Amino acid sequence: MASRLRLKKQKGPKGYLAERINRANSVAIGRLFSVEPTFVDVETAINVIPGITKHTILHSGTPIEWERMCDPMKRAVRGALIFEGLANDDKEAENLLRKNSIKLSPNHNHDSVGPMTGIISPSMPVVVTKDLTYRKKVFSTFNEGGGRVLWFGSFGKETLSRLKWIREVFGPIMKKVVAKAGGISIWTILAQGIQMGDECHNRHASSTNIFLKSIIEPLFSLGLSRDISLQVYRFIAGNSHFFLNLTMTSCKLALDAAHDVKDSTLVTAMSRNGTDFGIRVSGIGNRWFMAPAPYLEDALYNPGYDFNDGAPDIGDSSIIETMGLGGFAIAAAPSMAAFAGGGFEDAVRITREMGQITVAKNQKFSIPVMNFEGTPTGIDIRRVVESGVLPSINSAVIHKSSGAGQIGAGIVKAPYECFAKALRAFGSVYRLAA
Amino acid sequence: MASRLRLKKQKGPKGYLAERINRANSVAIGRLFSVEPTFVDVETAINVIPGITKHTILHSGTPIEWERMCDPMKRAVRGALIFEGLANDDKEAENLLRKNSIKLSPNHNHDSVGPMTGIISPSMPVVVTKDLTYRKKVFSTFNEGGGRVLWFGSFGKETLSRLKWIREVFGPIMKKVVAKAGGISIWTILAQGIQMGDECHNRHASSTNIFLKSIIEPLFSLGLSRDISLQVYRFIAGNSHFFLNLTMTSCKLALDAAHDVKDSTLVTAMSRNGTDFGIRVSGIGNRWFMAPAPYLEDALYNPGYDFNDGAPDIGDSSIIETMGLGGFAIAAAPSMAAFAGGGFEDAVRITREMGQITVAKNQKFSIPVMNFEGTPTGIDIRRVVESGVLPSINSAVIHKSSGAGQIGAGIVKAPYECFAKALRAFGSVYRLAA
Repeated sequence: MASRLRLKKQKGPKGYLAERINRANSVAIGRLFSVEPTFVDVETAINVIPGITKHTILHSGTPIEWERMCDPMKRAVRGALIFEGLANDDKEAENLLRKNSIKLSPNHNHDSVGPMTGIISPSMPVVVTKDLTYRKKVFSTFNEGGGRVLWFGSFGKETLSRLKWIREVFGPIMKKVVAKAGGISIWTILAQGIQMGDECHNRHASSTNIFLKSIIEPLFSLGLSRDISLQVYRFIAGNSHFFLNLTMTSCKLALDAAHDVKDSTLVTAMSRNGTDFGIRVSGIGNRWFMAPAPYLEDALYNPGYDFNDGAPDIGDSSIIETMGLGGFAIAAAPSMAAFAGGGFEDAVRITREMGQITVAKNQKFSIPVMNFEGTPTGIDIRRVVESGVLPSINSAVIHKSSGAGQIGAGIVKAPYECFAKALRAFGSVYRLAA
Repeated sequence: MASRLRLKKQKGPKGYLAERINRANSVAIGRLFSVEPTFVDVETAINVIPGITKHTILHSGTPIEWERMCDPMKRAVRGALIFEGLANDDKEAENLLRKNSIKLSPNHNHDSVGPMTGIISPSMPVVVTKDLTYRKKVFSTFNEGGGRVLWFGSFGKETLSRLKWIREVFGPIMKKVVAKAGGISIWTILAQGIQMGDECHNRHASSTNIFLKSIIEPLFSLGLSRDISLQVYRFIAGNSHFFLNLTMTSCKLALDAAHDVKDSTLVTAMSRNGTDFGIRVSGIGNRWFMAPAPYLEDALYNPGYDFNDGAPDIGDSSIIETMGLGGFAIAAAPSMAAFAGGGFEDAVRITREMGQITVAKNQKFSIPVMNFEGTPTGIDIRRVVESGVLPSINSAVIHKSSGAGQIGAGIVKAPYECFAKALRAFGSVYRLAA
């Protein structure tokens, strides 16, 4: 299959096409490396996210209609409608959705990203991450933490009260904190995090600690009551994934900067809605190249759960791997090796393999145990198709039907089919196909 | 030399002696593993440190008279006398010392430890670390941070004002913080730190962050003014070595628990005063086996300084290597590899070599990149003498004469001579020598 798909003229006289593509990819990767994502503000979704209305619910992955959504995403959408006061219960929510009274739309179409179900509803406070180089902004929710939470497709009374607290207390305070801090550079924190055992997807423990350090002073200088300041502090300190959503907005900023470069074969997004897995390619516009969302085969499950309980892979968070972090940087987080086969060498092997399908090393994020080699960055669809090496994504598993939320974590491979389709489309767009 | 020193009966019928020693070492290491060091209190040195008087200055390393002290330690002692109000200037301090009006005594003789010059004077606040298993307490100062500071043998106006602030503001507040926290487990923090790139001697960045996390709530709940709370916070957050002194007290607690085990050949302290390097051995009581303090040959110097500017190795902090951390755990901190020859493999090689001279692996501190192997712990003088492999210590370099303070950092090897002397003494104590 690989050879059939190889772009014919790539091997032609003087390798003209390959040169053109390589040049385009260099331009794209140069743009990716030059972004400076900074957490600059907190706003209400409806006030800043382009195209969102009072009756819009944003979700992770590629576009999908209500009926085809997986169970956990459906639960999260219904929960968001109740949170917005558009429905009083699941049944009312379901009715609205069946009548098409609610617009469901993917985050990526609205300069946004969200982990797992990735739900963003109009009244939620969102982090505003701005790229100081190209001035674009990308949005995401605050990470809700563990337990019964929308991002894990779980909903209950405590979900609602936590979301309300985030909207009414936490968000407004964080807006002041970020203003007082004068903006917080995300790459600076991740560069340290990766020296401290984070791969910056499934493990953000160190990055979250460093983030905490950078907000303590502004938080406790705001003139708030001690109790409220400590509540805010505790919410962040109690969730080692807190920084995840900020990482995701930053990765999207970098990949968006690399998008729409003519002739470029670089992947600029990988995303999943729990039903489909899609990728976008820099030189082919905003089309998604899709395949069924895979199940996590290499995962560790919480007691009482196994492979048969898991929903297919879900979330915009694979934007992190598209950026060369997460699964691509797993050697930086040997504590994740349990998912990779057990040993540190397995983690290094995966990071090395990702080097085969990427075009550059990102020296901003250097992996200590690989002698500070940069993270393998810039997935080239040609290399994936030719090598058969698939992007390795660190992910979580949520229950497929019970609303139990997270039941495990592990590794998943992006489907070959997406890259094969993208390469065919690339050939056809540039009139190069066999 | 090695073979001449080997204990004769070790190879005798049934290896009786070797068995007896190994059994004793197992007992000692079992005691070492069972301590639970906890930061429980802050007190004024004179109120808690056994044997300290108003005219005592404690210092690092083995016992040493004023005349033989290295220049940076002399500067620190004079500074401490000025801080205590016993002298108005260097000259008056010098006179007191020449007249023998001041008792100089090593920390180790007073259940205490201190990094570099290791100065503890009577009015300083000290951390009280208690072993919950054997109930012993060990003391150290708060780490002063960078710049002109006593621990680096540097003294000026700002040294004095910082020491006074620590005594009058910081210490009393930390006493309340620790009480409110209900004690802070040190191993728990170091176990996480070592998963996050700390080797727990020259690098404590993650451990200090985790410590910060554990005191934010008590600190900001004390009812102090916001400014004062933030001052305290800033002092810790601005010093990535803050946790060092707490690590040292804990290592001493563990090694003291392993001390005085009959027949044991385990090293229970390595310490240096900037002139001499000394070690103690579990089965031979409190004698120090000494050699000249070595210079750091593998070090990186601040701009403008080189090998010729450095004082000999100094400080009680090698208690950390005696515990199997620091240089012994350097593979856990690849960012320290620059000192080890440059590459990650060099760091792993050093940790593996330390495995040759130690009797156990400490699973409490597992090294992620070595597939979670425990840190090599329990230096056996027999193994050092037989193999010629010397304990590798991560250390700092301070200026030998100018009072400039720290000028570099690097690796130093414990002198062979100390171990050879100790092994001879062991033979003679147990009447086993040739």
